[in-house]
Amino acid sequence: VRYDSAQFLSIVDLAATVFLGIEGAMAAIDGNLDAFGIMVLSFATALGGGVIRDLLIGAVPPASIRDPRYAIAAFSGGAVAFFLHRFVRDVPSMALVDFDAAGLALFAVAGAAKALDREINPFMAVLMGAITGAGGGTIRDIFLARVPAILRVDIYAVAALAGAAVMVLGVKRGLPRAWAMAGGAIVCFLLRVTAVLRHWSLPKATGY
Amino acid sequence: VRYDSAQFLSIVDLAATVFLGIEGAMAAIDGNLDAFGIMVLSFATALGGGVIRDLLIGAVPPASIRDPRYAIAAFSGGAVAFFLHRFVRDVPSMALVDFDAAGLALFAVAGAAKALDREINPFMAVLMGAITGAGGGTIRDIFLARVPAILRVDIYAVAALAGAAVMVLGVKRGLPRAWAMAGGAIVCFLLRVTAVLRHWSLPKATGY
Amino acid sequence: VRYDSAQFLSIVDLAATVFLGIEGAMAAIDGNLDAFGIMVLSFATALGGGVIRDLLIGAVPPASIRDPRYAIAAFSGGAVAFFLHRFVRDVPSMALVDFDAAGLALFAVAGAAKALDREINPFMAVLMGAITGAGGGTIRDIFLARVPAILRVDIYAVAALAGAAVMVLGVKRGLPRAWAMAGGAIVCFLLRVTAVLRHWSLPKATGY
Repeated sequence: VRYDSAQFLSIVDLAATVFLGIEGAMAAIDGNLDAFGIMVLSFATALGGGVIRDLLIGAVPPASIRDPRYAIAAFSGGAVAFFLHRFVRDVPSMALVDFDAAGLALFAVAGAAKALDREINPFMAVLMGAITGAGGGTIRDIFLARVPAILRVDIYAVAALAGAAVMVLGVKRGLPRAWAMAGGAIVCFLLRVTAVLRHWSLPKATGY
Repeated sequence: VRYDSAQFLSIVDLAATVFLGIEGAMAAIDGNLDAFGIMVLSFATALGGGVIRDLLIGAVPPASIRDPRYAIAAFSGGAVAFFLHRFVRDVPSMALVDFDAAGLALFAVAGAAKALDREINPFMAVLMGAITGAGGGTIRDIFLARVPAILRVDIYAVAALAGAAVMVLGVKRGLPRAWAMAGGAIVCFLLRVTAVLRHWSLPKATGY
Repeated sequence: VRYDSAQFLSIVDLAATVFLGIEGAMAAIDGNLDAFGIMVLSFATALGGGVIRDLLIGAVPPASIRDPRYAIAAFSGGAVAFFLHRFVRDVPSMALVDFDAAGLALFAVAGAAKALDREINPFMAVLMGAITGAGGGTIRDIFLARVPAILRVDIYAVAALAGAAVMVLGVKRGLPRAWAMAGGAIVCFLLRVTAVLRHWSLPKATGY
């Protein structure tokens, strides 16, 4: 079997959706939600960012509402977490960070690319990339009645912004799209992983 | 006066909207909101699920934004609760459960039917039915800064899922739509009411 | 340089966006968010109401996603607050109330006008005006995991409703649009400022 690059991307996309579905479900389990809540958080965490991006750029119905494979991938992640959460907890946390950073990178550059395809202004396309990558975790935290983590700590959405910006700049400078996407994804991934390893976080407005 | 079935459905729909508006307003009163907050929660609880469904399936402006009768029905429910909340509290709780389950059943099957009409995939149409039925209560809880009840306890959204699934399967198997809708609504209603009577709830992922 | 009235409105609109961006960022600073959270709240507070209105009336992509000047204005407000929040705190609170009331008035009448332009029913157009004016602060509070202030205290959204209603009634009675907008904005502004000065608030449903 030979895969072309669109098929490859779509397989990677579904794999990232399963993984982010597991993450959302683990947060739901920690928050003492029931089986239905676990499934809702797997869907919202994995697909919420892309749904919001699609609503904002006018691509309706959103891809993950039109194509049932996305929901099935997210729910599969939720089911894995439901039945195997004890094993998921044994996975080294740095491996989880790596997978999560890979998903973030993919969603950020793919989200920005989709916005460019819909003729969204490049500056706003970068924001759409960040929403695609970081929106799901934001919705998850709102469902859990918490101030979203990405607004308080860590370098997370900023990594998505950086990756999306590299991608958009690359395309605008005439790079082949695949190269621009790969470059953006690498920047996002490395920035996120380095930030975790070195405990980087963003400044706060202090001294008032 | 003779009513055809579309008129009948639309009258039942408005009645369910009034009732769900009362429910949302009662939650607002319990949460110590003011008169404006009571009206917002009556609208959001009664119509929020349908608005989200319409945004997701691309039916914009949503029905309850285009047709002012829905908002008027929800606000009427809010006004009833505002002025008569002491009497509402005297209604036997099982009667409230019955009305609520009837509204849930109606919204779930009607929501799934509307999604099918817009060529949404059957699996996703079932999810859209559940969002129509259970989305309003979710938004209400987010406004009240609480983890949505349907994610934690009770059989509520699952009843909506079951009813929507019966409806969609019925239509796909060639049943007349009215029969499929009636069958789905009955399944949703009975499952919800039985769950309350027997204190059923969904499993949680335990033992970690 | 001569400006026509559309240019004038658009300049006032951007100025209001900067100011509301400052307000959102100050709430983020008080909530101990980081630099990214501050920028998100400046965007959400200033532009969230208009984005929701545009999604609801089917004007997609929303104006503030299509035109990057809005995001730049909101982020500029965020940057002002980030670097100069100590000075912002020295501004007399009544001056802040005046600026905020002016922004609310502008957004409410402009939001209702845009809804009318899209053939939204007049009653619903008034609601769209209130969502435009008060929606941003609601989203800000949800991000901060609080029950939105406008649902609990104060005369805020009701001033937006009153201003939007005056505007819509004026247009429907055949007033020139500029007059109807000016009249609605003045009503909204005066009602809001008077409510703050006199500590007015809405009734709650009591005595249960």
